[in-house]
Amino acid sequence: MANQKQSTATSNLNVVCLAGGVGGAKLADGLAQILPPDRLTIVVNTGDDFQHLGLTICPDLDTVMYTLGGAANPETGWGREGETWITIGEVARLGGPAWFNLGDLDLATHLVRAQMLSEGQNLTSATHHLCSLFGIEAPVLPMSNQLAPTKILSDGEEPLMFQEWFVRERWQPPVREVQLPDDVIASAQVTMALERADLVLVAPSNPFVSIDPILNVYPIREMISDLPLAVVAVSPIVGGAALKGPAAKMMIEKGMTVSPTAVAAYYGDLIDGLVYDVQDEASAGDFACSTLVTDTIMRDREDRKRLAQETLAFAEEIARSGRNH
Amino acid sequence: MANQKQSTATSNLNVVCLAGGVGGAKLADGLAQILPPDRLTIVVNTGDDFQHLGLTICPDLDTVMYTLGGAANPETGWGREGETWITIGEVARLGGPAWFNLGDLDLATHLVRAQMLSEGQNLTSATHHLCSLFGIEAPVLPMSNQLAPTKILSDGEEPLMFQEWFVRERWQPPVREVQLPDDVIASAQVTMALERADLVLVAPSNPFVSIDPILNVYPIREMISDLPLAVVAVSPIVGGAALKGPAAKMMIEKGMTVSPTAVAAYYGDLIDGLVYDVQDEASAGDFACSTLVTDTIMRDREDRKRLAQETLAFAEEIARSGRNH
Repeated sequence: MANQKQSTATSNLNVVCLAGGVGGAKLADGLAQILPPDRLTIVVNTGDDFQHLGLTICPDLDTVMYTLGGAANPETGWGREGETWITIGEVARLGGPAWFNLGDLDLATHLVRAQMLSEGQNLTSATHHLCSLFGIEAPVLPMSNQLAPTKILSDGEEPLMFQEWFVRERWQPPVREVQLPDDVIASAQVTMALERADLVLVAPSNPFVSIDPILNVYPIREMISDLPLAVVAVSPIVGGAALKGPAAKMMIEKGMTVSPTAVAAYYGDLIDGLVYDVQDEASAGDFACSTLVTDTIMRDREDRKRLAQETLAFAEEIARSGRNH
Repeated sequence: MANQKQSTATSNLNVVCLAGGVGGAKLADGLAQILPPDRLTIVVNTGDDFQHLGLTICPDLDTVMYTLGGAANPETGWGREGETWITIGEVARLGGPAWFNLGDLDLATHLVRAQMLSEGQNLTSATHHLCSLFGIEAPVLPMSNQLAPTKILSDGEEPLMFQEWFVRERWQPPVREVQLPDDVIASAQVTMALERADLVLVAPSNPFVSIDPILNVYPIREMISDLPLAVVAVSPIVGGAALKGPAAKMMIEKGMTVSPTAVAAYYGDLIDGLVYDVQDEASAGDFACSTLVTDTIMRDREDRKRLAQETLAFAEEIARSGRNH
């Protein structure tokens, strides 16, 4: 009976997942494995997007697309499986900027996107077209159709574009401030998805440079605070460190402890529950929200599916119990 | 003594070569083999340029650059030697426009050019940078820094962009009219080169869609009429046909005979001499200008050099004899 209820609930509730790069893409893939496409919407950070070599590059959108489409490089988490590097090698020989690795298959995505944008399509429409070609049924939505560049202020006077800091400088310059743009508005598709959302799941992406840029887009933070039955985040901190990327380093630079407790405190009232890793159970402090302790490391597609199922069941339980907001 | 005089003349006269695609690139390469780089300027048609997949594609500039840089595909005459086609294959799979063949090495040129243009460089400066990386010393100049798209009016109401007609439609739709833009101005580098030009050589390129677009750029036609000691064209018609491309087909559609005589008549007063092929000697009619009959087919680099030498000597002879204009 309990199981039956749970499965009924799963098929009736509308889920929005906020996702950044590799970790976000993996949880989104887990959710796409268990939810019908009309119950799941994935809203993706486009603060990393930048103009490069004449093209619009959308790193997080593409990581989500390649992951859900089964085309991602399993070694790196980003880029295409079976990739080659002929063009970027020649760009380097011609003295062009080659610090951002663009593989030959990956380049096709950027060229086709550029063509669609140059013909007047917006990023939402171009993303929909590309995702459909990768066989993805659930909507994958850029957070906005506007440019919304995240900038990193380090020791210099001028902030760096996010990818300059993240890829070119290998996220080594200390972060004094993450600068998010004012006046960016969510697309109609994003606000419609949030209007009908029962559950919002925050993927284990970097809170400062993957999730905050999404929440910064008006009115996403406001709608998430007001509307859904439950908001649950998955901690990107595992065993006192980030599985990948600069989240832990940034927390230290902010004077935070590197722990799921600190992640939950950072999200504050926005979330009703946190999913965190068993490795952190002994050291975790007190949480102001509900918690679920499990294995959060997603090594393969089965892991993604299991974590998605557990996270969803936990969020549904919060929604049913009325422990939200 | 005669030889010595001729060689002195060669090294003292300033030469401008007007070039379109493959034939133009070959004669330009021959000239670059025999002239010091400060005596030769190559002015290239950019009427074929177009925006495609977000990039600025300059087919004739690139053909000249790859040919002079020793990087051209010897089979096709265009594109890079040792080319691969990974990205464009994926563009096709993603439903993008794949009718214009962009190889993986060639793409690097377009990406680096796009980067330079996006940083505010003009096409002349970007071309100079790329050519220097291909080891080319003589200036290769786009006819203008402005967009100057050649359009082809065929049976439809709307004209086609040149590359749509030339590549996508394989130049099969009959040409009712070649539409050249008004108000395009030559770059300062082009007008300076023409100001100091003693000889102007018109390469064996298509008169209607490679050379006319250059002459249409103000004040190129006017300067060529007024300034140089001699203007000599090489006929693109060999044996009553075009070696490559639509020149002969267009002449037939215009009601012209397909002959060097018709080419000379088309250029009219602009040229003082025509170089044409031995295959056409028996059938050629009367010419209003001086002529040189030789083997004009350029099979290899030696052929290019020989034809360049003969063409240059012929032009110098016209200049010395005062038979010009």
